[in-house]
Amino acid sequence: MTEPLRYSQSRPAALTQVPRWDYEADIIVLGFGAAGACTALEAARAGARVLLVESAAGSGGTSALSGGEIYLGGGGGTPIQRAAGFEDATEDLYRYLLMVGGPNADAAKARRYADGSLAHFEWLSAQGIEYKNSYIAERCIEPSTDDCLIWSGSEEAWPFVAQAKPAPRGHCPKFLGMGGGRYVMDVLTRRVVEAGVQVLYNARALALVTDGARDVHGLVLRSEGAERFARARRAVVLCAGGFVMNRDMVRQHAPFLLRSQFPLGTVDDGSGILLGASAGGAMMNMSEGFVTIPWYPPGSMVKGIFVNDRGQRFINEDCYHGRVSNYILRQGGDRIWLLQDHATFAMGEMQTLAKMEIGAAGETWEEVERELQLPEDSLAATVRLYNHYAAQGTDPLFHKAAKWLKPLNEPPYVAIDCRIDHCFYASFTLGGLDSLPTGEVVDADRQPIGGLFAAGRTTCGLPRWGEGYSSGLSLADATFFGREAGRRAATSSR
Amino acid sequence: MTEPLRYSQSRPAALTQVPRWDYEADIIVLGFGAAGACTALEAARAGARVLLVESAAGSGGTSALSGGEIYLGGGGGTPIQRAAGFEDATEDLYRYLLMVGGPNADAAKARRYADGSLAHFEWLSAQGIEYKNSYIAERCIEPSTDDCLIWSGSEEAWPFVAQAKPAPRGHCPKFLGMGGGRYVMDVLTRRVVEAGVQVLYNARALALVTDGARDVHGLVLRSEGAERFARARRAVVLCAGGFVMNRDMVRQHAPFLLRSQFPLGTVDDGSGILLGASAGGAMMNMSEGFVTIPWYPPGSMVKGIFVNDRGQRFINEDCYHGRVSNYILRQGGDRIWLLQDHATFAMGEMQTLAKMEIGAAGETWEEVERELQLPEDSLAATVRLYNHYAAQGTDPLFHKAAKWLKPLNEPPYVAIDCRIDHCFYASFTLGGLDSLPTGEVVDADRQPIGGLFAAGRTTCGLPRWGEGYSSGLSLADATFFGREAGRRAATSSR
Repeated sequence: MTEPLRYSQSRPAALTQVPRWDYEADIIVLGFGAAGACTALEAARAGARVLLVESAAGSGGTSALSGGEIYLGGGGGTPIQRAAGFEDATEDLYRYLLMVGGPNADAAKARRYADGSLAHFEWLSAQGIEYKNSYIAERCIEPSTDDCLIWSGSEEAWPFVAQAKPAPRGHCPKFLGMGGGRYVMDVLTRRVVEAGVQVLYNARALALVTDGARDVHGLVLRSEGAERFARARRAVVLCAGGFVMNRDMVRQHAPFLLRSQFPLGTVDDGSGILLGASAGGAMMNMSEGFVTIPWYPPGSMVKGIFVNDRGQRFINEDCYHGRVSNYILRQGGDRIWLLQDHATFAMGEMQTLAKMEIGAAGETWEEVERELQLPEDSLAATVRLYNHYAAQGTDPLFHKAAKWLKPLNEPPYVAIDCRIDHCFYASFTLGGLDSLPTGEVVDADRQPIGGLFAAGRTTCGLPRWGEGYSSGLSLADATFFGREAGRRAATSSR
Repeated sequence: MTEPLRYSQSRPAALTQVPRWDYEADIIVLGFGAAGACTALEAARAGARVLLVESAAGSGGTSALSGGEIYLGGGGGTPIQRAAGFEDATEDLYRYLLMVGGPNADAAKARRYADGSLAHFEWLSAQGIEYKNSYIAERCIEPSTDDCLIWSGSEEAWPFVAQAKPAPRGHCPKFLGMGGGRYVMDVLTRRVVEAGVQVLYNARALALVTDGARDVHGLVLRSEGAERFARARRAVVLCAGGFVMNRDMVRQHAPFLLRSQFPLGTVDDGSGILLGASAGGAMMNMSEGFVTIPWYPPGSMVKGIFVNDRGQRFINEDCYHGRVSNYILRQGGDRIWLLQDHATFAMGEMQTLAKMEIGAAGETWEEVERELQLPEDSLAATVRLYNHYAAQGTDPLFHKAAKWLKPLNEPPYVAIDCRIDHCFYASFTLGGLDSLPTGEVVDADRQPIGGLFAAGRTTCGLPRWGEGYSSGLSLADATFFGREAGRRAATSSR
């Protein structure tokens, strides 16, 4: 048995034991990623005195590692959607958000976001985030140019297309190349500073401070080598990311993510979630995670088919790369191949990044099958069935759309090795604290905990189901519900 | 916003607010199933004054719904294993327990159980639970006779057989017919009464009582229409089952179980887990669950093959029925068939209970395929490949053992409909509070919470992974770690 820790993120410090207050503010925001920035900004603009606490030496968090893409639409479409010829009804966005939320979707958050997304685009632009009026029709993950609008989810793929009219909704900032998240965070950071938010860098949260009624009154911090006590007159807002870097938590809640050797995050040590839970906040969807191998572009790769180590197909390959990858991780074995023929084969930068390599090649599929040491007529039968129906423009087993169907019948044939224990499978967690659309953290009875709010990956937000995740949802959720939390917290009282 | 509840299982009541103590004991045990009975028994025998609180009007809990089977072995084998010709080394039991625990197995609990299982068998016998010295070699789920020893897991199936020498370890009590769990609980209940445990029936736990340091001091109860306050001088032990009957919790943590329309439980409303979490107890493996369609006996059914709605096989059919069913629920669609030929087909009572019906029949597999409206040469190709290798005594895709391999080539052929939305798929949850082998409930730092213990389904115990579950593990865990918790709690101090 180890000594009990003096302070712990999973055990609140008692208000009566706080020796002094080193800091005081109306609102204390923990974490300076996109959620924390938007929370702080709106709270400060609503008149609150805001202290923003960040464990790193600068702003950005995991948001700055992203492409800066934000999932936006509805209300007939953003100006950029409309210019590209897409009308995007609020109800289509809403239905899509419900679908991507999976069996435990949060209808209230989806409703609020669908209704407010168009105005949110205007707000983001008003902060100074620039968007080029342009659209990329070609399937991609993130533009290498400074273009804006892309297809960033499974909107056109079965089963989503059957329930919501598709539109491209990924809005990338006007930033040349990958990594627009840093640009977005730089813009938001300037606004935060201008708004008079006090920022405390290099400060780690050790524990929440609660009273006998479980209401939250502040934080115990470690800053400049000492314990500091920070009082929040109105509320603490947890915007401290997910838990993908806390491998113990991943093992306890989402062990399938351990198979991904590339967790995407900065700190993401679960501290926001643990702190919230320590005050009674309910955790939800903790087993859900995003995982992906970036196996396209080029788009022609989508005309290939994935097979598992039994030579079986398992998904319509025209859906979002993260959905395909989620299914890959359920196949049991580590070996996965993407089959291509001479006409569809095209490997480039993305496949190099993904560490995808040719695993076998042959003049017949039987030859490929033998080279992969698969049982006789396993993989070959799979291709034969696929080709038979693809020639008729249908995919009765998995419903891949006709535009991606082409018989794989032009030799030579290749099986591209996508094995899980070797290739680049990136991941992050999707579970977190249950919260209301206002940002209030709730307990298992859905009762708000006094003085406690959260936003972004620390919560279980719009992105909460690995099968449904679409690019841009995380920043959409972080920025939009961060704003909501900031506005609400600024006028809250315990 | 609803009014905050006066008392809530997810919000501890403050010790300072307790108006009086209506009950006082050294140990308060919540829940009179197998875990609670064994906890109370050992605590009382260690000299503690014990109050056992049960929400129903009698003892039993969900344990009484079970077959009464307990997973036992190691140490060279129980007398019954040895009489049947099985030596069962402790290390084989340990390795099997580690495997069935999955990626987040608890090595400390597995070790403790493997080392203590043989003595535990003696203890159970000494309580008066009778075991007949007999063995059933035939594959079954639960004996319809009063026989004892059965194969109750995946011990002989791939991949388990490759890592631990198999032995039958399911010990069923000497009780004629199904439902031996009631018999086991009747015996334990008599011992509990004899030991002088005070039992309070029809009493529901409203909240834990904690002090400022988060230590647990008792429970707020609802009994005889009024709030009652029960003081635990040493500890509260939560033995209140799982959460399968709390459909909100299931949706938030293990939504795949919503597809099972037959949750197995009595109360199992998650109250034990919520109470523990309210005092800072960490929850684990909450997404894991057991699910099963009882598709055998007769054992000849195992010679058939399961296919999903794409006509694909997905598992070696010779593993435990719950493992097969866990894979069934991952196949996406609702339609699942069990294919049999004239030689292997045998439907009986169990299949009637399971609501399995013939979905299609034909003189050729192509005919069956057409009748099921599956794409051309999907199911037929699957059977062809299976038969080809089965004739050679191998199953290169799924590693079914040779004794179950027989080409399905004797017409007529049938596809037995096992669809999820129609058939009897029973389920229960496997996630719960993290605890030490001593029963101490721990927080996310694995620090024990003063005055709080738990056992049985309320904890994340030996059975914690749907793919690995084996019959008898739940009662093994509940009785063994209930005893540990009782002994430890009896001498504990905050």
